[in-house]
Amino acid sequence: MDFQRLLDEIAHRLMHEAGREGAVASYIPALARVSGAHFGIALRTCEGEEASAGDGRLPFSIQSISKLFTLTLAMRHMSEDALWARIGREPSGNPFNSLVQLESEQGKPRNPFINAGAIAVADRLVGLYGADAKGELLAFMSHLAGEPIGFDHEVAASEAATGYRNYALANFMKSFGKLDHDVDTVLDFYFHQCALSMSALQLARTAGYLCRDGAHPCREGAQVVTERQARRINALMLTCGTYDAAGDVAFHIGLPCKSGVGGGIVAVVPDRLTLAVWSPALDATGNSLLGMKALALFAQRTGLSIF
Amino acid sequence: MDFQRLLDEIAHRLMHEAGREGAVASYIPALARVSGAHFGIALRTCEGEEASAGDGRLPFSIQSISKLFTLTLAMRHMSEDALWARIGREPSGNPFNSLVQLESEQGKPRNPFINAGAIAVADRLVGLYGADAKGELLAFMSHLAGEPIGFDHEVAASEAATGYRNYALANFMKSFGKLDHDVDTVLDFYFHQCALSMSALQLARTAGYLCRDGAHPCREGAQVVTERQARRINALMLTCGTYDAAGDVAFHIGLPCKSGVGGGIVAVVPDRLTLAVWSPALDATGNSLLGMKALALFAQRTGLSIF
Amino acid sequence: MDFQRLLDEIAHRLMHEAGREGAVASYIPALARVSGAHFGIALRTCEGEEASAGDGRLPFSIQSISKLFTLTLAMRHMSEDALWARIGREPSGNPFNSLVQLESEQGKPRNPFINAGAIAVADRLVGLYGADAKGELLAFMSHLAGEPIGFDHEVAASEAATGYRNYALANFMKSFGKLDHDVDTVLDFYFHQCALSMSALQLARTAGYLCRDGAHPCREGAQVVTERQARRINALMLTCGTYDAAGDVAFHIGLPCKSGVGGGIVAVVPDRLTLAVWSPALDATGNSLLGMKALALFAQRTGLSIF
Amino acid sequence: MDFQRLLDEIAHRLMHEAGREGAVASYIPALARVSGAHFGIALRTCEGEEASAGDGRLPFSIQSISKLFTLTLAMRHMSEDALWARIGREPSGNPFNSLVQLESEQGKPRNPFINAGAIAVADRLVGLYGADAKGELLAFMSHLAGEPIGFDHEVAASEAATGYRNYALANFMKSFGKLDHDVDTVLDFYFHQCALSMSALQLARTAGYLCRDGAHPCREGAQVVTERQARRINALMLTCGTYDAAGDVAFHIGLPCKSGVGGGIVAVVPDRLTLAVWSPALDATGNSLLGMKALALFAQRTGLSIF
Repeated sequence: MDFQRLLDEIAHRLMHEAGREGAVASYIPALARVSGAHFGIALRTCEGEEASAGDGRLPFSIQSISKLFTLTLAMRHMSEDALWARIGREPSGNPFNSLVQLESEQGKPRNPFINAGAIAVADRLVGLYGADAKGELLAFMSHLAGEPIGFDHEVAASEAATGYRNYALANFMKSFGKLDHDVDTVLDFYFHQCALSMSALQLARTAGYLCRDGAHPCREGAQVVTERQARRINALMLTCGTYDAAGDVAFHIGLPCKSGVGGGIVAVVPDRLTLAVWSPALDATGNSLLGMKALALFAQRTGLSIF
Repeated sequence: MDFQRLLDEIAHRLMHEAGREGAVASYIPALARVSGAHFGIALRTCEGEEASAGDGRLPFSIQSISKLFTLTLAMRHMSEDALWARIGREPSGNPFNSLVQLESEQGKPRNPFINAGAIAVADRLVGLYGADAKGELLAFMSHLAGEPIGFDHEVAASEAATGYRNYALANFMKSFGKLDHDVDTVLDFYFHQCALSMSALQLARTAGYLCRDGAHPCREGAQVVTERQARRINALMLTCGTYDAAGDVAFHIGLPCKSGVGGGIVAVVPDRLTLAVWSPALDATGNSLLGMKALALFAQRTGLSIF
Repeated sequence: MDFQRLLDEIAHRLMHEAGREGAVASYIPALARVSGAHFGIALRTCEGEEASAGDGRLPFSIQSISKLFTLTLAMRHMSEDALWARIGREPSGNPFNSLVQLESEQGKPRNPFINAGAIAVADRLVGLYGADAKGELLAFMSHLAGEPIGFDHEVAASEAATGYRNYALANFMKSFGKLDHDVDTVLDFYFHQCALSMSALQLARTAGYLCRDGAHPCREGAQVVTERQARRINALMLTCGTYDAAGDVAFHIGLPCKSGVGGGIVAVVPDRLTLAVWSPALDATGNSLLGMKALALFAQRTGLSIF
Repeated sequence: MDFQRLLDEIAHRLMHEAGREGAVASYIPALARVSGAHFGIALRTCEGEEASAGDGRLPFSIQSISKLFTLTLAMRHMSEDALWARIGREPSGNPFNSLVQLESEQGKPRNPFINAGAIAVADRLVGLYGADAKGELLAFMSHLAGEPIGFDHEVAASEAATGYRNYALANFMKSFGKLDHDVDTVLDFYFHQCALSMSALQLARTAGYLCRDGAHPCREGAQVVTERQARRINALMLTCGTYDAAGDVAFHIGLPCKSGVGGGIVAVVPDRLTLAVWSPALDATGNSLLGMKALALFAQRTGLSIF
């Protein structure tokens, strides 16, 4: 299949729609300033073929997509039991930042892809790496991407200054004894992971291990995680990766996806390729409006689906 | 792969555990009387190869597995818009018979595989077939199975006499104007669909269209549903098919599954096979305890997974 | 104090506002037909002085005000322990017909003045009186009122035909094993109690025992309930008598009140008088809009308050 | 009535039970260290008669009882509209520190006596007094008590170090734009108000305006609040003053009460007296176990009730 041509076609069709509908995330100034008129798409196959179109090489704030990589990092270095003792694996059935379920489940987040769950993972990584945690994350991301990846410090500072909901979540978990480390330290790490700045092409490349049974995206012979772990991460993406729209995304698109409020989405076609899209205007569920349209077009045109 | 040998091995390993842990569903006498000491397993490949082991040919009450088939029947005969206007497609994040979400969503069930959602589907089928609805369901099931399928009338009567929770759900939806037909008529159909009596082998055969892109399990050239519809049903099974354990099942087993409190589970490996297991003792999530163990063993031994 | 003059004044001031704001309950045709343009008020002092103004002598459907009298009847004939084993005494913090709390408290209603709680009381009275329950209720009401009180059978039939929410509540409680009797029998009683037809003056008279330390409203020497029981009923009225507005009513009016969706409200000034108002148009909390205004005026003009 | 004799009798009867049942609040070390074996009781009549027994003159941490006084202070200096724009007046139907209702009501606390509500009041007082807020509170308390009242700084520091739930509540409200001031500043004030150290006798004296139609407890001619405001505070105490037990306290005791996790309770008999009890061991609802027993005995022996 001529992927470059397909991405060009999708970009051609969607770029003029960019920013017409939906709304750019406005809860922090650094995100609100981004123009809604961007559209980028990129993919990388298992064999290493790459393609990108539109703004596919422009960096943006990956936000919640980072939860995929911090979970991977935690799975690499911790036992299953230790990791999952404080985090569930079920869809939440509630908006991504809800405190309601956290209360009824005594501070144990439903899954690692809602904010509370990612904060719990961050707490584990802070435990693992201490003061080096942010540096270790950058090293891991850069190792996967094959080039240096950095934080957008303005975004991180903006989240720290106004991320009251996340302070509420972290303090709430702490009140149930479900965070080992200091709230401020854990959130400093969390705000930085959300502020990772990457392009769609970099994301498609970095997430490549998820379509390669856990093998490193480009270095032959190196495993990022085991085959079983890669499958499990894909399963979590499918059931929990797109907030309260996961069921609908599985129904309409049929691929494991992880989205962020920066407007990015990463999708996996196991044993074939990883795909990343970016368009900042979001729909009512907090997912990129054109990003979802692009994934639907891609799935329809290629017939690729896990079902 | 020698599937017969594999099923024999799984049955051999699990049969002696049957009934040791977990508890048979006790909310109606007709189910409570079933011995927990059964274990059956069966599969059918896309090409028509069949295998079964243990009690794989013994009929049992398929209960919520029927939701798969009534949804399929509704999808065959109704427009997408008409069908999904009153039913969501999201995991519930709450136990299968919860009224809480039904209240916050004004009588619109989260998905077609929780009781409320299946009652909404039943309402649609009653609208479609009127007094013939039960007969049409039997005809459809028998057509798929290639042999006559019937109701266990004692089970249906038992549900009608004591199914207060379902009466509550149906009346609650009716109070929101979300049921077109009479509560008693709709529930009579619903209680009968749950009382369908089938063996694991019959289930594997009947669900065959789900691994064959919608094609009839055995009659060449006949489509039960379109390829796209078959994929969508599989997606719903994965995200919503095993009550509040869907995330964990996707994580550990990696296959679309639909379970019932009678102890049955149907699983689909797209483009390969359908698998059915039966063991009446349930775990805390309401899924068959040994059934889940059997699926995990099968997935592990074959390496089959959608992820 | 010249109560007749005060009621005339209040009626004069409010009657021309009747029906301008708010909305008559529309969930059953028999109630929806009532004109919103009514306003009636009446009182009876401990010493037996009576006054009424406006439509104070016109009968209307007392609806939930009946919960006051069925609770009283149950308290007369049952032990404290037996009565309160299945009913709480706490404000609900949720709309009056919510199923959410009923679920989290396993079918035990929060208090006897929400629908679920009154259905639980009805179940107890059906247990006490069997087939005579409706007759016993009429006898009790007539005994208190000093004249025959009857049901509006059209209203009762209308509720039975369309009261899906109440069927849902009753079946839900039944599913938790919290109703002893048949759902239909219990609801037949409940729908009739709600359909009691009385005027504001009759209500003020009938509820007279609540301001007389439990003594019969007009027969000297006869106790309806003990002094302690009368106080407890008043306490329940204050904390739970006006649905989700109880806190606000205590704050603004300062008197124990019980309201109904027919537009009636009964208020008690312990050791002084009982007051009843009626105006069918309801506010957003389901309480009579002008009825609440009338109570506020009365409290302000007389300075009467329990606080 | 010989109040001194009555309090002696109650103290005599309950003191030997002190600490046998219930559990001292343990969420901060400074409270956990207090012996459960204390029991104190004190009252002050409208006319200025005082009585106390047991440990009625020993200071303790008044905790949530302080919410009564900060609300009073806010009512003195703010318009009704400004004060109640961000705080409801309804019982919560949920434990005192629940975040669930705060979420469904978009950061507006149900009433000023749950933690979230008191934090909202604290935010208002910080707005009114700025850096002087703590000093103004002490001045107000001392003015009412007729003697200097101070903070237990160890308790305040302990709350600040471990009050994660309150940090969660405050950040959550802040995320909804419902706090004007800095979370840390507001909570510093809140933790200090909870750490006010007073004896039962001081509390009975200080709260005296609540039984005197708002008049200063001992200075003739001075109004603390208006008569109407005093009644409204009493109404809020009755409906919301004892966490999730308010309905039961109204039912069994029949007096407006405000309790704290330090084991204190203040009760008001309008136009007669204020009563304060203290015993650190708490029941399951977070109220002082012996304190409630003492109030029930007092109500029973005196026949005093608002109903």
